[in-house]
Amino acid sequence: MEIDRNGMEVLDREHSLALVRSATIGRLAIHAGALPAIVPVNFILTADAVVIRTGTGSKLQQAVDNAVVAFEVDDYDALRHTGWSVNVVGIAREITDPSLLDRVRRLPLAHWVPGPADHHLAISLDVVTGRRILEAAHVSV
Amino acid sequence: MEIDRNGMEVLDREHSLALVRSATIGRLAIHAGALPAIVPVNFILTADAVVIRTGTGSKLQQAVDNAVVAFEVDDYDALRHTGWSVNVVGIAREITDPSLLDRVRRLPLAHWVPGPADHHLAISLDVVTGRRILEAAHVSV
Repeated sequence: MEIDRNGMEVLDREHSLALVRSATIGRLAIHAGALPAIVPVNFILTADAVVIRTGTGSKLQQAVDNAVVAFEVDDYDALRHTGWSVNVVGIAREITDPSLLDRVRRLPLAHWVPGPADHHLAISLDVVTGRRILEAAHVSV
Repeated sequence: MEIDRNGMEVLDREHSLALVRSATIGRLAIHAGALPAIVPVNFILTADAVVIRTGTGSKLQQAVDNAVVAFEVDDYDALRHTGWSVNVVGIAREITDPSLLDRVRRLPLAHWVPGPADHHLAISLDVVTGRRILEAAHVSV
């Protein structure tokens, strides 16, 4: 088991992607205007991308289209002080190819926000990193 | 009640900060080297800042010191498809004033990561924005 300089377990790509697959909400780091923001999103993980839905001309679409973005998923146990976090860094591109779009529209991709969401963005899985806090190692103050 | 263009309820500053206060884990958007990342952190909300702990020379400390950062807290109900998210955008500064540091060290600020965390960063509460997905409005696919 690999441990990083902060004492956290380093998760390999395969394990990290399995954890991403287990979640329903992820978070995107974007710039909205000049200001940074973190936006929760529904997503689905395909073989080669994180796919999210967004509305036409939305801040999200404008902010991430063709940009390098960070997408993060995590889960924590507040009683045991354990948890994990996975970051996916890749290029966000709108899916416009008709046959690909047709396939993506059939995916079970939820959209909890009531507004319209007729655009699909794919974030490539270029850099996938995961960390886990082990139970035995926890320190609390 | 104010509703945004995506059909989500807009939460005012006071309500947003009350939700932040209810949480134990937040997330910081940073740049580690050239790549964006989202890092979960323990934090505590004081009257004028989000305070987090970090280790000497850590990636986190280097990435956020004196930078404008986004700090986010959220919570979701996967069954009801409801949830809320609050973003705090402010300047992250290391706390070095001895009397302030002394006060901050007495705060009940947990640190689940086993590595050392002898530095404290304060993120000013310059822009606080919150959104909530209402139960009745949820749309799922």
